[in-house]
Amino acid sequence: MTTLAVDDLAASRQFFEDGLGWTAAEGSNDQIAFYQLPGSAFALYSRAALEKDLGRTLSRDTLGGITLAWNGRSEGEVDAAFEQAVAAGAEVVTRPEKTFWGGYSGYVAIPGGHLLEIAHNPFWTLAGDGSVSLTG
Amino acid sequence: MTTLAVDDLAASRQFFEDGLGWTAAEGSNDQIAFYQLPGSAFALYSRAALEKDLGRTLSRDTLGGITLAWNGRSEGEVDAAFEQAVAAGAEVVTRPEKTFWGGYSGYVAIPGGHLLEIAHNPFWTLAGDGSVSLTG
Repeated sequence: MTTLAVDDLAASRQFFEDGLGWTAAEGSNDQIAFYQLPGSAFALYSRAALEKDLGRTLSRDTLGGITLAWNGRSEGEVDAAFEQAVAAGAEVVTRPEKTFWGGYSGYVAIPGGHLLEIAHNPFWTLAGDGSVSLTG
Repeated sequence: MTTLAVDDLAASRQFFEDGLGWTAAEGSNDQIAFYQLPGSAFALYSRAALEKDLGRTLSRDTLGGITLAWNGRSEGEVDAAFEQAVAAGAEVVTRPEKTFWGGYSGYVAIPGGHLLEIAHNPFWTLAGDGSVSLTG
Protein backbone atom coordinates (compact mmCIF):
# COMPACT_ATOMS: atom_id res chain seq x y z
CA MET A 1 0.00 0.00 0.00
CA THR A 2 1.18 3.51 -0.82
CA THR A 3 -0.12 6.22 1.51
CA LEU A 4 -0.10 9.98 1.04
CA ALA A 5 -0.13 12.15 4.16
CA VAL A 6 -2.51 15.07 3.61
CA ASP A 7 -3.47 18.08 5.69
CA ASP A 8 -7.03 18.34 4.44
CA LEU A 9 -8.44 14.87 3.88
CA ALA A 10 -11.81 16.18 2.67
CA ALA A 11 -10.14 18.30 -0.02
CA SER A 12 -7.90 15.42 -1.09
CA ARG A 13 -10.84 13.01 -1.26
CA GLN A 14 -12.69 15.56 -3.37
CA PHE A 15 -9.80 15.61 -5.87
CA PHE A 16 -9.70 11.82 -6.28
CA GLU A 17 -13.44 11.09 -5.95
CA ASP A 18 -15.16 14.08 -7.57
CA GLY A 19 -12.29 15.12 -9.82
CA LEU A 20 -10.98 11.74 -10.98
CA GLY A 21 -13.99 9.55 -10.31
CA TRP A 22 -12.38 7.13 -7.86
CA THR A 23 -14.51 5.30 -5.27
CA ALA A 24 -13.37 4.99 -1.65
CA ALA A 25 -13.35 1.44 -0.27
CA GLU A 26 -15.06 0.08 2.82
CA GLY A 27 -13.35 1.21 6.01
CA SER A 28 -12.71 4.77 4.84
CA ASN A 29 -13.56 7.46 7.38
CA ASP A 30 -12.71 11.05 8.28
CA GLN A 31 -9.08 10.10 9.13
CA ILE A 32 -8.21 7.80 6.22
CA ALA A 33 -9.55 6.86 2.79
CA PHE A 34 -8.62 3.63 0.98
CA TYR A 35 -8.77 3.01 -2.76
CA GLN A 36 -8.43 -0.34 -4.56
CA LEU A 37 -5.74 -0.36 -7.25
CA PRO A 38 -5.03 -3.40 -9.44
CA GLY A 39 -3.26 -5.76 -7.02
CA SER A 40 -2.52 -3.12 -4.41
CA ALA A 41 -3.99 -0.33 -2.31
CA PHE A 42 -3.68 3.43 -2.15
CA ALA A 43 -4.59 5.56 0.86
CA LEU A 44 -4.97 9.19 1.84
CA TYR A 45 -4.25 9.66 5.53
CA SER A 46 -4.42 12.59 7.90
CA ARG A 47 -0.91 13.97 8.38
CA ALA A 48 -1.49 14.45 12.12
CA ALA A 49 -2.63 10.83 12.54
CA LEU A 50 0.38 9.48 10.60
CA GLU A 51 2.75 11.57 12.69
CA LYS A 52 1.17 10.12 15.81
CA ASP A 53 1.55 6.55 14.46
CA LEU A 54 5.20 7.10 13.61
CA GLY A 55 6.13 9.14 16.66
CA ARG A 56 7.93 11.48 14.24
CA THR A 57 7.24 14.75 12.50
CA LEU A 58 6.85 14.55 8.74
CA SER A 59 8.69 17.01 6.55
CA ARG A 60 6.45 19.71 5.05
CA ASP A 61 8.45 19.19 1.87
CA THR A 62 6.42 16.78 -0.25
CA LEU A 63 9.49 16.03 -2.41
CA GLY A 64 10.91 13.60 0.13
CA GLY A 65 12.24 11.13 -2.39
CA ILE A 66 9.22 8.96 -3.20
CA THR A 67 7.27 9.65 -6.37
CA LEU A 68 4.12 8.17 -7.86
CA ALA A 69 3.32 7.55 -11.50
CA TRP A 70 0.09 6.75 -13.34
CA ASN A 71 0.66 4.90 -16.62
CA GLY A 72 -1.50 5.25 -19.73
CA ARG A 73 -1.67 3.13 -22.88
CA SER A 74 -0.70 5.87 -25.35
CA GLU A 75 0.47 9.47 -25.60
CA GLY A 76 -3.16 10.44 -26.18
CA GLU A 77 -4.22 8.76 -22.92
CA VAL A 78 -1.46 10.66 -21.12
CA ASP A 79 -2.64 13.98 -22.56
CA ALA A 80 -6.25 13.23 -21.61
CA ALA A 81 -5.35 12.15 -18.07
CA PHE A 82 -3.10 15.20 -17.65
CA GLU A 83 -5.93 17.55 -18.64
CA GLN A 84 -8.36 15.71 -16.38
CA ALA A 85 -6.00 16.07 -13.42
CA VAL A 86 -5.49 19.79 -14.09
CA ALA A 87 -9.24 20.32 -14.48
CA ALA A 88 -9.68 18.59 -11.10
CA GLY A 89 -7.29 21.03 -9.41
CA ALA A 90 -3.77 19.67 -9.96
CA GLU A 91 -0.98 22.13 -10.83
CA VAL A 92 1.15 21.75 -13.94
CA VAL A 93 4.82 21.02 -13.12
CA THR A 94 6.07 19.80 -16.52
CA ARG A 95 3.78 19.30 -19.52
CA PRO A 96 3.90 15.84 -21.18
CA GLU A 97 6.73 15.47 -23.66
CA LYS A 98 8.80 12.72 -25.24
CA THR A 99 11.50 11.40 -22.90
CA PHE A 100 15.06 10.32 -23.67
CA TRP A 101 14.19 6.69 -22.85
CA GLY A 102 11.49 6.50 -25.51
CA GLY A 103 8.43 7.26 -23.41
CA TYR A 104 6.12 10.24 -22.94
CA SER A 105 5.70 11.88 -19.55
CA GLY A 106 4.66 14.96 -17.59
CA TYR A 107 4.32 15.86 -13.91
CA VAL A 108 1.52 17.51 -11.93
CA ALA A 109 1.36 18.47 -8.27
CA ILE A 110 -1.92 17.20 -6.85
CA PRO A 111 -3.76 19.20 -4.15
CA GLY A 112 -1.59 18.99 -1.03
CA GLY A 113 1.59 19.18 -3.10
CA HIS A 114 2.56 15.58 -3.87
CA LEU A 115 3.97 15.03 -7.35
CA LEU A 116 2.34 12.62 -9.79
CA GLU A 117 4.00 11.57 -13.03
CA ILE A 118 1.53 10.85 -15.85
CA ALA A 119 3.36 8.65 -18.34
CA HIS A 120 3.27 6.24 -21.24
CA ASN A 121 5.96 3.55 -21.40
CA PRO A 122 5.84 1.75 -24.77
CA PHE A 123 7.93 -1.12 -23.37
CA TRP A 124 5.29 -2.08 -20.78
CA THR A 125 1.86 -3.69 -21.16
CA LEU A 126 -1.31 -2.52 -19.44
CA ALA A 127 -4.12 -5.04 -18.96
CA GLY A 128 -7.81 -4.17 -19.11
CA ASP A 129 -7.98 -3.44 -15.38
CA GLY A 130 -4.92 -1.17 -15.55
CA SER A 131 -2.48 -3.78 -14.23
CA VAL A 132 1.08 -2.96 -15.27
CA SER A 133 3.28 -5.72 -16.69
CA LEU A 134 6.98 -4.88 -17.04
CA THR A 135 7.35 -6.66 -20.37
CA GLY A 136 6.39 -5.49 -23.82
CA MET B 1 4.49 2.90 -10.18
CA THR B 2 6.02 3.91 -6.87
CA THR B 3 9.63 5.08 -7.08
CA LEU B 4 12.16 5.57 -4.30
CA ALA B 5 14.98 8.04 -4.87
CA VAL B 6 18.21 6.55 -3.53
CA ASP B 7 21.77 7.85 -3.25
CA ASP B 8 23.45 4.50 -3.70
CA LEU B 9 21.52 2.39 -6.19
CA ALA B 10 23.91 -0.58 -5.88
CA ALA B 11 23.43 -0.71 -2.11
CA SER B 12 19.67 -0.39 -2.43
CA ARG B 13 19.51 -3.12 -5.09
CA GLN B 14 21.56 -5.34 -2.77
CA PHE B 15 18.98 -4.87 0.00
CA PHE B 16 16.03 -5.85 -2.21
CA GLU B 17 17.73 -8.47 -4.37
CA ASP B 18 20.23 -10.19 -2.06
CA GLY B 19 18.46 -9.36 1.21
CA LEU B 20 14.83 -9.89 0.26
CA GLY B 21 15.21 -12.08 -2.81
CA TRP B 22 13.51 -9.79 -5.35
CA THR B 23 14.43 -10.00 -9.05
CA ALA B 24 14.99 -6.85 -11.12
CA ALA B 25 12.96 -6.65 -14.35
CA GLU B 26 14.15 -6.13 -17.91
CA GLY B 27 15.28 -2.56 -18.51
CA SER B 28 17.02 -2.15 -15.15
CA ASN B 29 20.46 -0.53 -15.33
CA ASP B 30 22.93 1.42 -13.18
CA GLN B 31 20.54 4.41 -12.93
CA ILE B 32 17.22 2.65 -12.26
CA ALA B 33 15.94 -0.76 -11.22
CA PHE B 34 12.37 -1.94 -11.82
CA TYR B 35 10.50 -4.64 -9.90
CA GLN B 36 7.19 -6.27 -10.83
CA LEU B 37 4.58 -6.11 -8.05
CA PRO B 38 1.13 -7.70 -8.38
CA GLY B 39 -0.63 -5.30 -10.76
CA SER B 40 1.90 -2.50 -10.42
CA ALA B 41 5.57 -1.60 -10.51
CA PHE B 42 8.18 -0.49 -8.00
CA ALA B 43 11.43 1.28 -8.89
CA LEU B 44 14.67 2.39 -7.26
CA TYR B 45 16.04 5.44 -9.02
CA SER B 46 19.20 7.49 -8.67
CA ARG B 47 18.41 10.63 -6.68
CA ALA B 48 20.56 12.76 -8.98
CA ALA B 49 18.75 11.48 -12.09
CA LEU B 50 15.31 12.09 -10.56
CA GLU B 51 16.30 15.63 -9.56
CA LYS B 52 17.38 16.24 -13.15
CA ASP B 53 14.05 14.89 -14.49
CA LEU B 54 12.04 17.08 -12.13
CA GLY B 55 14.20 20.19 -12.35
CA ARG B 56 13.90 20.37 -8.56
CA THR B 57 15.99 19.40 -5.57
CA LEU B 58 14.57 16.59 -3.45
CA SER B 59 14.43 16.97 0.29
CA ARG B 60 17.06 14.91 2.13
CA ASP B 61 14.28 14.17 4.62
CA THR B 62 12.84 10.81 3.58
CA LEU B 63 9.73 11.46 5.68
CA GLY B 64 8.17 13.66 3.04
CA GLY B 65 4.63 12.45 3.53
CA ILE B 66 4.45 9.28 1.43
CA THR B 67 4.80 5.92 3.13
CA LEU B 68 4.93 2.36 1.85
CA ALA B 69 3.50 -0.75 3.45
CA TRP B 70 3.99 -4.45 2.84
CA ASN B 71 1.06 -6.59 3.94
CA GLY B 72 1.30 -10.12 5.31
CA ARG B 73 -1.39 -12.76 5.87
CA SER B 74 -0.93 -13.12 9.62
CA GLU B 75 0.91 -11.72 12.62
CA GLY B 76 3.44 -14.53 12.18
CA GLU B 77 4.11 -13.48 8.59
CA VAL B 78 4.65 -9.91 9.77
CA ASP B 79 7.13 -11.04 12.42
CA ALA B 80 9.02 -13.17 9.88
CA ALA B 81 9.13 -10.39 7.26
CA PHE B 82 10.23 -7.88 9.90
CA GLU B 83 13.13 -10.11 10.97
CA GLN B 84 14.09 -10.75 7.32
CA ALA B 85 14.19 -7.00 6.62
CA VAL B 86 16.31 -6.32 9.71
CA ALA B 87 18.68 -9.19 8.82
CA ALA B 88 19.02 -7.62 5.35
CA GLY B 89 20.09 -4.28 6.83
CA ALA B 90 16.90 -2.38 7.69
CA GLU B 91 16.75 -0.45 10.98
CA VAL B 92 14.04 -1.02 13.55
CA VAL B 93 11.75 2.02 13.99
CA THR B 94 8.82 0.44 15.86
CA ARG B 95 8.55 -3.30 16.53
CA PRO B 96 5.34 -5.00 15.35
CA GLU B 97 2.47 -4.68 17.82
CA LYS B 98 -1.31 -4.77 17.83
CA THR B 99 -2.86 -1.54 16.52
CA PHE B 100 -5.95 0.28 17.74
CA TRP B 101 -7.76 -0.56 14.48
CA GLY B 102 -7.45 -4.31 14.95
CA GLY B 103 -4.31 -4.96 12.91
CA TYR B 104 -0.66 -5.71 13.66
CA SER B 105 2.12 -3.45 12.42
CA GLY B 106 5.70 -2.27 12.79
CA TYR B 107 8.01 0.09 10.89
CA VAL B 108 11.55 -0.29 9.61
CA ALA B 109 13.81 2.21 7.84
CA ILE B 110 15.31 0.51 4.79
CA PRO B 111 18.85 1.37 3.65
CA GLY B 112 18.71 4.96 2.39
CA GLY B 113 16.21 5.93 5.09
CA HIS B 114 12.77 5.36 3.59
CA LEU B 115 10.20 3.99 6.00
CA LEU B 116 8.40 0.71 5.32
CA GLU B 117 5.42 -0.44 7.37
CA ILE B 118 5.16 -4.22 7.72
CA ALA B 119 1.56 -4.99 8.59
CA HIS B 120 -1.29 -7.46 8.81
CA ASN B 121 -4.81 -6.17 8.20
CA PRO B 122 -7.37 -8.85 9.11
CA PHE B 123 -10.09 -7.01 7.15
CA TRP B 124 -8.27 -7.41 3.82
CA THR B 125 -7.64 -10.47 1.65
CA LEU B 126 -4.31 -11.41 0.05
CA ALA B 127 -4.35 -13.62 -3.04
CA GLY B 128 -1.70 -16.22 -3.79
CA ASP B 129 0.40 -13.71 -5.76
CA GLY B 130 0.24 -11.16 -2.94
CA SER B 131 -2.49 -9.05 -4.55
CA VAL B 132 -4.34 -7.00 -1.94
CA SER B 133 -8.14 -6.91 -1.98
CA LEU B 134 -9.76 -4.29 0.25
CA THR B 135 -12.59 -6.58 1.34
CA GLY B 136 -12.57 -9.29 3.97
